[in-house]
Amino acid sequence: MIFRLLSRTRIEEYLNKDDRIILPVGSTEQHGPYGLTGTDHLIAEKLAEKIAELTYTIAGPTLPYGMSLHHTEFKGVLTLKPSTLFCVFEDVFWSLHKQGFKRIMIINGHGGNRNTFGALMSEYLYKYTDMKVKFRCWWDARGIRELIRKKFGDREGKHCSPSEISLTMYLFPELVQQTETKYKPMPDRTVFENPVHFKEKFPDGIVGADPNLATAEHGKELFEKISEAFISEMNYWGE
Amino acid sequence: MIFRLLSRTRIEEYLNKDDRIILPVGSTEQHGPYGLTGTDHLIAEKLAEKIAELTYTIAGPTLPYGMSLHHTEFKGVLTLKPSTLFCVFEDVFWSLHKQGFKRIMIINGHGGNRNTFGALMSEYLYKYTDMKVKFRCWWDARGIRELIRKKFGDREGKHCSPSEISLTMYLFPELVQQTETKYKPMPDRTVFENPVHFKEKFPDGIVGADPNLATAEHGKELFEKISEAFISEMNYWGE
Amino acid sequence: MIFRLLSRTRIEEYLNKDDRIILPVGSTEQHGPYGLTGTDHLIAEKLAEKIAELTYTIAGPTLPYGMSLHHTEFKGVLTLKPSTLFCVFEDVFWSLHKQGFKRIMIINGHGGNRNTFGALMSEYLYKYTDMKVKFRCWWDARGIRELIRKKFGDREGKHCSPSEISLTMYLFPELVQQTETKYKPMPDRTVFENPVHFKEKFPDGIVGADPNLATAEHGKELFEKISEAFISEMNYWGE
Amino acid sequence: MIFRLLSRTRIEEYLNKDDRIILPVGSTEQHGPYGLTGTDHLIAEKLAEKIAELTYTIAGPTLPYGMSLHHTEFKGVLTLKPSTLFCVFEDVFWSLHKQGFKRIMIINGHGGNRNTFGALMSEYLYKYTDMKVKFRCWWDARGIRELIRKKFGDREGKHCSPSEISLTMYLFPELVQQTETKYKPMPDRTVFENPVHFKEKFPDGIVGADPNLATAEHGKELFEKISEAFISEMNYWGE
Amino acid sequence: MIFRLLSRTRIEEYLNKDDRIILPVGSTEQHGPYGLTGTDHLIAEKLAEKIAELTYTIAGPTLPYGMSLHHTEFKGVLTLKPSTLFCVFEDVFWSLHKQGFKRIMIINGHGGNRNTFGALMSEYLYKYTDMKVKFRCWWDARGIRELIRKKFGDREGKHCSPSEISLTMYLFPELVQQTETKYKPMPDRTVFENPVHFKEKFPDGIVGADPNLATAEHGKELFEKISEAFISEMNYWGE
Amino acid sequence: MIFRLLSRTRIEEYLNKDDRIILPVGSTEQHGPYGLTGTDHLIAEKLAEKIAELTYTIAGPTLPYGMSLHHTEFKGVLTLKPSTLFCVFEDVFWSLHKQGFKRIMIINGHGGNRNTFGALMSEYLYKYTDMKVKFRCWWDARGIRELIRKKFGDREGKHCSPSEISLTMYLFPELVQQTETKYKPMPDRTVFENPVHFKEKFPDGIVGADPNLATAEHGKELFEKISEAFISEMNYWGE
Repeated sequence: MIFRLLSRTRIEEYLNKDDRIILPVGSTEQHGPYGLTGTDHLIAEKLAEKIAELTYTIAGPTLPYGMSLHHTEFKGVLTLKPSTLFCVFEDVFWSLHKQGFKRIMIINGHGGNRNTFGALMSEYLYKYTDMKVKFRCWWDARGIRELIRKKFGDREGKHCSPSEISLTMYLFPELVQQTETKYKPMPDRTVFENPVHFKEKFPDGIVGADPNLATAEHGKELFEKISEAFISEMNYWGE
Repeated sequence: MIFRLLSRTRIEEYLNKDDRIILPVGSTEQHGPYGLTGTDHLIAEKLAEKIAELTYTIAGPTLPYGMSLHHTEFKGVLTLKPSTLFCVFEDVFWSLHKQGFKRIMIINGHGGNRNTFGALMSEYLYKYTDMKVKFRCWWDARGIRELIRKKFGDREGKHCSPSEISLTMYLFPELVQQTETKYKPMPDRTVFENPVHFKEKFPDGIVGADPNLATAEHGKELFEKISEAFISEMNYWGE
Repeated sequence: MIFRLLSRTRIEEYLNKDDRIILPVGSTEQHGPYGLTGTDHLIAEKLAEKIAELTYTIAGPTLPYGMSLHHTEFKGVLTLKPSTLFCVFEDVFWSLHKQGFKRIMIINGHGGNRNTFGALMSEYLYKYTDMKVKFRCWWDARGIRELIRKKFGDREGKHCSPSEISLTMYLFPELVQQTETKYKPMPDRTVFENPVHFKEKFPDGIVGADPNLATAEHGKELFEKISEAFISEMNYWGE
Repeated sequence: MIFRLLSRTRIEEYLNKDDRIILPVGSTEQHGPYGLTGTDHLIAEKLAEKIAELTYTIAGPTLPYGMSLHHTEFKGVLTLKPSTLFCVFEDVFWSLHKQGFKRIMIINGHGGNRNTFGALMSEYLYKYTDMKVKFRCWWDARGIRELIRKKFGDREGKHCSPSEISLTMYLFPELVQQTETKYKPMPDRTVFENPVHFKEKFPDGIVGADPNLATAEHGKELFEKISEAFISEMNYWGE
Repeated sequence: MIFRLLSRTRIEEYLNKDDRIILPVGSTEQHGPYGLTGTDHLIAEKLAEKIAELTYTIAGPTLPYGMSLHHTEFKGVLTLKPSTLFCVFEDVFWSLHKQGFKRIMIINGHGGNRNTFGALMSEYLYKYTDMKVKFRCWWDARGIRELIRKKFGDREGKHCSPSEISLTMYLFPELVQQTETKYKPMPDRTVFENPVHFKEKFPDGIVGADPNLATAEHGKELFEKISEAFISEMNYWGE
Repeated sequence: MIFRLLSRTRIEEYLNKDDRIILPVGSTEQHGPYGLTGTDHLIAEKLAEKIAELTYTIAGPTLPYGMSLHHTEFKGVLTLKPSTLFCVFEDVFWSLHKQGFKRIMIINGHGGNRNTFGALMSEYLYKYTDMKVKFRCWWDARGIRELIRKKFGDREGKHCSPSEISLTMYLFPELVQQTETKYKPMPDRTVFENPVHFKEKFPDGIVGADPNLATAEHGKELFEKISEAFISEMNYWGE
């Protein structure tokens, strides 16, 4: 079920028997010359809705904005500052707690959100000791890193990766217009990047990845495997 | 066009010839016993996408959260605090400015966002004197209040109104399960409401409205009229 | 009675039998070539003191600063940012609550304060459910809009209006040196204004108003009618 | 001249030939059983207006609220938090700078404002290196401590002192209803006080002072001497 | 060289020929029954001073506080909130930039600081595009994870690890009074921990580690290997 | 005892029988041509450790950063903003309260910290009415001002004073390389200083002081007298 498409009455009924919710978060940022700017939040949203459906739980609203400051020299990027993202998570988690949800599973599609989220969680869980929160980047689902490695090896890279492009090719076949890009291996990244250096170093917005390898078939397999892994985590939540 | 479904390249092309964007904002909150919790942002989103399509402009990401603190004694409500909403608008507008957008039209579906938005705008426009921002609640589109009054008179009320229920019945016919509710006229509201009084005063979450009057046909007419009015505003932006 | 002119003992005695307070807020900003910069807070202060006197209640300290960012290209303007004004209201209301006041009536003389005040109230009343707050712009007192319309019609305008100039001519007859100004009707204001455009559009600092119509006699009638309306609201506070 | 009673035009004329302004700040807090709650800001206001008059400069709006958290167990107290007071000063000083004022003289009537003001100034002057700010508690005017010591010796104390009561007896003769209070010498205050301890230690709200010594005559002499000293500082601003 | 032990003149001379600085950060938190509460910042400090000495650079002040909210149910813990730590880093980096340092190497001794630091860096580097920042946890120095694995295998654990205890046994031989503790393997940690659960799960404050394996000899080898690795990074800073 | 060098167990034992802690704070800022940049926090640290040793209490971590914005035109200066320093104190005091400490004695070595600390205390003690906090600049220890006056008279000055240089010459004899500086008497400082004026006025970073008078012998006597005075305050804490 999907929160925004439910009435208050249906949510009351649900909260009488369950306390789990799945929350998709991502970003709106450039994904190379042809990747969708919504790639990160669209993948998270589709996964969350699938998992909710198969576990009879609820997928909450999608946060389309994430922390993408390092991409801001490119077009196609809308970002929140870390401090704003911190406040949004804080308010949403406070709301969920007040509603009666006790177990939150974040499905995250954007690496840049991890630090801010982690920083918040320390403060949030200090105050709300009855809440349990899982934060899952989709590529961290059990078995997925191995699957990606098998499929794409080092060419997975860090941004605009064949796995994320594959997922959107499967989910939005008519929208992703694959064109050939030149593969450049991942450089040794030893310092934090500012947006200007970032664009100089990766002028096409691809970071050590080879999206030429992406196919809808890969996307389908990834989507199913990730869904399975997360469904299993939802059903056996653990302590 | 829809921002999240475009590639960076398409957005670059667009920004070379246009500088307008439409931004839907709303809320996730209870709308009576059967209204969708996403009513406010779903209507805004559908309108924004329609208007973008017909004006060859772009609809930006939908903010599903709004300022709904006064509803928080009900289930079905996820809210941001005014100060958080302020920061989100600030970052998003900053991003849009940096991308090169100069004219922003907000399509708002939730009355509770107006004060925070207005407070921000004073501060934002002080800094960004080259930006032009319109903030439009859909019920403020030219001619719509009159149309609503003709259709529903005083029974439009303030929350869970026949017009917003009609719009969702038209847009999501399979999801809105209309059931009869008891109409109570709008009381004289002379003081600001806190959430506890709010729920005591309006125990079914309907504020002076009669959603029994809602029909998909009304919704269709409203949707078309609102779209037309906003398309006209987009095309003749004014000074 | 006036808070600043009372001793602690008198306030203790008052709080043993009443819990109402009147709080004047306004701005310090230009009001055309000859209007007083304190117009907004001076009118609010005089009204609050009159009402307090006739209802045996207390008028609290006047906040002379408001949200006037859009006027800052003119001389004669001292402003708070919305976020600062938010904090001031928050602390003052917290203080009033701690003192034992339960019903606050704000008399507001400046339109630019409304959004910030409204944004705060949502957050404040969420926490203080035993407080009742009325926020009244003087032009919203019962019957006043009609009276103004009868007196000045469309020439009332939006800023430096004949009604506010009349009020100060009545209250400070020796200070307001009326000179002729040129009337320009209100343009269609379709976008939020930044201070630079604002001054370009309204170079004499008058917005669609005709202060030539102002007289002390109008001011006297307005002052008395507004006082009566607010006294009545104070005495019949309602639920 | 008094800012709130001037028109924009008069302020423009003034700024063409001068860049000084006097800003009265104080508090609204209990001053023993019969002292006025506005004592601190009323004295500052009267001094500022007198000095402005005699130096042909402008007295800005009075901030009636200060940092009085330690008094909040008493009735008659409205306070800002230090962080809010910091923001108010920041915005007002920013406004003054934008208007064209370059030399600000604060007349302060409340000791509790000093720390917050000092903390702000470090940050403010870092950014605005063309501004010159004097912050003067009235009891720090040249020669005044000596005069007070001669008049009241140790019985001046720390709060509700004979000098501040004298000043209000002179300025508001009809309002201050002197009654006898019991003098208790100043205890050794070795730790920061919280409001609860503060009230336990000083149950009548008088801190080591003997307001029985206050007279309007003392007040008159103090007022004149303080005015003279500050007028001299205004006229010989120094580097 | 050590910043706090240098004069202004020596720092000026240094900045004329170099722009690097090493900044040790850590925490003050419990490290099991006998580990020093300063373990994290003491190791970072000693490493920073060693590296500075051998690379002729400067070690800046040690920040003894980190983000340790999850430990706060134990004694021996002083923590900053993430938002405060964010501000401290922001101000210190701003200061370093103003001084003329361009390359900052953070030596971090506490895992809990990583998220906050990462969140800040995105915002900081957006503004300061001429700064280069490396953030290094000592266990991430080249070759160290392998060395630790060889020495302690899985018994390294997550907190109060044999490697950190070894380091302090080497650096402060007289202070660490090793006593036997019971080893419990690392549980599967699937959810973010709040401080109450954290203490319930790890009542002796050791997380999956076996500090019985710690020796000063291990500490010596680790200290030398980590120093070497970081010296090499300092000398070959890379692009 | 020194907090960072104690284990959790030792701190637990201590808190079972005592509730006092000593907290050294200072700054990292230029102290003339040859004074150590750490002068302020190093003196505070050495004093705190000495006092802790002789009173069987604990010295907490040293905060090496203070509020030094006015020095930032010089090299050798790392500063926090007042608002950041406020947050650091707030978190540390919150931590100490949670640990069970009830009496905090701050040993402060930097005048620029006083305002921020004072501003915070008003807010902190409002919330934590069971805490007792002493804030002591070392030059305010009983009898020290008199001793300094006897030793150095007016040549003590305001910054880079012979007393602070003497203290570091005694504590770090090998590090302070005294060279002759030219004495300039203290000018009349009538306005708040910004960093640019500050450096223009005091180009060698010495403010009205004559550090030529400093000797290690003076430092030894001062150190011993200050320690004695503070030990006495610790032992007879008072009410």
